Amino acid sequence: MATQPNILFIMADQLRADYLGRNGHPTIKTPTIDALAAKGVNFTKAYTQAPVCGPSRMSFYTGRYAFSHGATYNNVPLKLSEKTIGDYLRPLGYRVGLVGKTHMKKDVEGMQRLGVDPESSRGVLLSECGFEPYERDDGLHPDQAVSPDLAYNNYLRGLGYDGHNPWHEWANSGEGENGEVLSGWYMRNCHLPARIPEAHSETAYTTNRAMEFIRESADAPWCLHLSYIKPHWPYIAPAPYHDMYGPEDVLPVNASEQEKANLHPVIEAFMGHDESMNFSREEVRQRVIPAYMGLITQLDDHLARLFAFLKEIGQYDNTLVVLTADHGDYLGDHWLGEKELFHEASARIPMIIHDPRPQADTTRGREDDRLIEAIDLVPTFVELAGGDVPNHILEGRSLLPLLTSGEVAQWREFAISEADYAWRKARFALDLAPDQTRAIMITDGRWKYVHYEHFRPQLFDLQQDPQEQQDLGQDEAHADQCERLEQALYDWYRQRKMRTTVSNAAVANMTGKAHARGYLFGLW
Amino acid sequence: MATQPNILFIMADQLRADYLGRNGHPTIKTPTIDALAAKGVNFTKAYTQAPVCGPSRMSFYTGRYAFSHGATYNNVPLKLSEKTIGDYLRPLGYRVGLVGKTHMKKDVEGMQRLGVDPESSRGVLLSECGFEPYERDDGLHPDQAVSPDLAYNNYLRGLGYDGHNPWHEWANSGEGENGEVLSGWYMRNCHLPARIPEAHSETAYTTNRAMEFIRESADAPWCLHLSYIKPHWPYIAPAPYHDMYGPEDVLPVNASEQEKANLHPVIEAFMGHDESMNFSREEVRQRVIPAYMGLITQLDDHLARLFAFLKEIGQYDNTLVVLTADHGDYLGDHWLGEKELFHEASARIPMIIHDPRPQADTTRGREDDRLIEAIDLVPTFVELAGGDVPNHILEGRSLLPLLTSGEVAQWREFAISEADYAWRKARFALDLAPDQTRAIMITDGRWKYVHYEHFRPQLFDLQQDPQEQQDLGQDEAHADQCERLEQALYDWYRQRKMRTTVSNAAVANMTGKAHARGYLFGLW
Repeated sequence: MATQPNILFIMADQLRADYLGRNGHPTIKTPTIDALAAKGVNFTKAYTQAPVCGPSRMSFYTGRYAFSHGATYNNVPLKLSEKTIGDYLRPLGYRVGLVGKTHMKKDVEGMQRLGVDPESSRGVLLSECGFEPYERDDGLHPDQAVSPDLAYNNYLRGLGYDGHNPWHEWANSGEGENGEVLSGWYMRNCHLPARIPEAHSETAYTTNRAMEFIRESADAPWCLHLSYIKPHWPYIAPAPYHDMYGPEDVLPVNASEQEKANLHPVIEAFMGHDESMNFSREEVRQRVIPAYMGLITQLDDHLARLFAFLKEIGQYDNTLVVLTADHGDYLGDHWLGEKELFHEASARIPMIIHDPRPQADTTRGREDDRLIEAIDLVPTFVELAGGDVPNHILEGRSLLPLLTSGEVAQWREFAISEADYAWRKARFALDLAPDQTRAIMITDGRWKYVHYEHFRPQLFDLQQDPQEQQDLGQDEAHADQCERLEQALYDWYRQRKMRTTVSNAAVANMTGKAHARGYLFGLW
Repeated sequence: MATQPNILFIMADQLRADYLGRNGHPTIKTPTIDALAAKGVNFTKAYTQAPVCGPSRMSFYTGRYAFSHGATYNNVPLKLSEKTIGDYLRPLGYRVGLVGKTHMKKDVEGMQRLGVDPESSRGVLLSECGFEPYERDDGLHPDQAVSPDLAYNNYLRGLGYDGHNPWHEWANSGEGENGEVLSGWYMRNCHLPARIPEAHSETAYTTNRAMEFIRESADAPWCLHLSYIKPHWPYIAPAPYHDMYGPEDVLPVNASEQEKANLHPVIEAFMGHDESMNFSREEVRQRVIPAYMGLITQLDDHLARLFAFLKEIGQYDNTLVVLTADHGDYLGDHWLGEKELFHEASARIPMIIHDPRPQADTTRGREDDRLIEAIDLVPTFVELAGGDVPNHILEGRSLLPLLTSGEVAQWREFAISEADYAWRKARFALDLAPDQTRAIMITDGRWKYVHYEHFRPQLFDLQQDPQEQQDLGQDEAHADQCERLEQALYDWYRQRKMRTTVSNAAVANMTGKAHARGYLFGLW
């Protein structure tokens, strides 16, 4: 199967692109990821299609923009007609598995309507974005929502951790001076070590499960989506990662009074969210960010373990490795917490790809600043697996040319990212109906333009103002840029791929054939 | 069931809006349709969402624009995730049936992927736009494509008409002087009577089947899509309709040398099609149009028979009747034949609705020139049936307010119609790939603007130039109109409803609730 490399598609939830040593962070330690980049290609201008878990991942898994697949926010079920990565790779002979998180919400109503049993193997695949759910863990759930049967809960229980939800009580909590359980949900507790040894933590467990999947899959090409929950909140790390970093390692916040002077209504509404108000306090940043960084370094250490394992079993040189994230984390920048909006902290993602094949030798160690989108992975994988890329459905572009020769006649001019914040309190503050809350970002790499429905746009010059401190959206001197990018957005909307049930080749094959088929209209 | 009126949703394929007496045609006889309009509301500015059978009908049946449902041309399968009229009305207690044509292409590949047996009752509904196919006849098929089991073929065979495809050989052919069969596919034969008595013709048969459906459905509210194939080609009518009209009844062609002087490339390419070249000859018009008109009058006579039947069985006063068409027919106007483009002859459709309920008494006989779209029927029917209109999916608006009080605070400002001509020879002439052939029309009732991908736009002033002879798309003096309508198109694209798996009410119910559900992110 040398012609069909394995695919190790690693995602770290909420990992900011600039929180990697290779990407310039001065204090964080990510030697494994840095080494991967040194041997592969580091795409420095990669954007998520939506800076929030669910829609971002649905774009990663379908190869389509959020506008097109329609799952615009967390817990919006993906329509059953949307094909996913498994639909493309499984027929090419791949085992397509999941270990970790997807944030997929299954379309129960759709299944009922179409008579698909969610418990059948087809139903399970449709419920899991086409992945065989070797291990699905979507991250810590609240007590009232948790199933006692979550795999990681069972694992912890097997190790003797008691309680209804040991994931919460042990893995995502710390302890007070008197042994009281202090929930990791609360950021005031993020400096504490988790109540379990590192070897039992989510990241360690997830890595173990990935190795089990890989070991089991030795006989066929495989695509494993290894989808780590961390460094996503709750921001609580096991020892020794909980105090590996201190306030001295925390970068100064990227927020200014200047920003507040020209505040966009939507930004202002988001600034009213709890996470924004809390992350705007230096006390919070200095407690949370060291834990966030510790979780990243822990992840890096487990990737070292995983890559060593791949080498040990002789699969490293036949496995394409992708390291990316679904979105970033504001961490107080721009007076915001969490993600969802379009500053670089939130919308830019790490995208490092190691292609082990000789034909990629010429690009090793390259930093590539062409515009990359999350939707590019599915076509990349399909092409790598030897399939035909269905370009009437997939809206991304294969990255293989960029990984091998590095040459491509014409690359995309713009990257797009979308938001639908109807689920957030900001909607109330802005007095909008649930279908009035869309925003869309377009960037050509230098200029970043955000179109908000019902509000004025924003414009940033990433070259002159990489910190995005100066919103030029109302600046008369930049009206031409705004107009140009608005036109590009309009062009983008018109090109969305909705005619997904007939391929372009099939259409081409039908053109002008009606008479030949006997439909003799219009003849005298 | 007095609270749930029946719905008789009549469509006549390729019936031009202006080929009705009520709509001003000076020579055609359509007394039944005219009387329906006199008792109901005649919407004089109704547009099809796509001037070609398949996509138009998919819009009629889904309540969504072609861009949204994706079935952009004939024989593009409708995605299984697209709900149709049956999904909405059946749960409200309606029997939802089809007699006639839909041009639906079932999504075989999608069914295979989702495990739906096309032969199961679910599979059949999914194959038939949600209609129970009481009688499906999509019109005359060529010999090599025809199934000998087509219902109308079987009917004819039962009457003693022989051959593999009696629909073609008898119902849609005439006879020469020596008894030779002359195919109705060829327009030179359109002056001949069909080889069967009128009572055995498609239109008569279809009406009979509708009456059978209605008779069978007396116990529950029903929605019948009565979808006549005629006056669509082959343009051949049975006696006496074949010579009811003559050249003296044919209106002068609406085509001029002025149009040719400023020819749009797409129009020019369509002018190269056989149907356009033939219909540009007066000989063809004078032979075909009388037959076309005869078929319309025949239809009108059968509607009289049908309405008499409804009265006889006591259902007329409890049945909402719609009379519409999927698109028009150029018939040589603008040097074109067939349809597909956006002149009034092609994109405007008849839309007459008779609401028998007392609350509609105030609007009887009204001519309503507000902009109506094909997608308005599904929400109209859902509201009439007492259901909640799912406004996160349906893109049309219920016409009930226009039928009852006539009052509505704010009606739509623009109507839209779309084309995808990848399947036509014009694509070769224009040297386009199969995904570069989209065009879209927007009108505010006065100005009609057509955006063509890869070509300049067109603009017509329907008030000053109702014949659409003067394309102002390149006229500097009208640049502001073009810009305004281009902006309106951009706004329209952004508002498409793709998040169809969660209702607006459900979203509203979730807004700001994450913390209450125990997801305690962002708290200190």
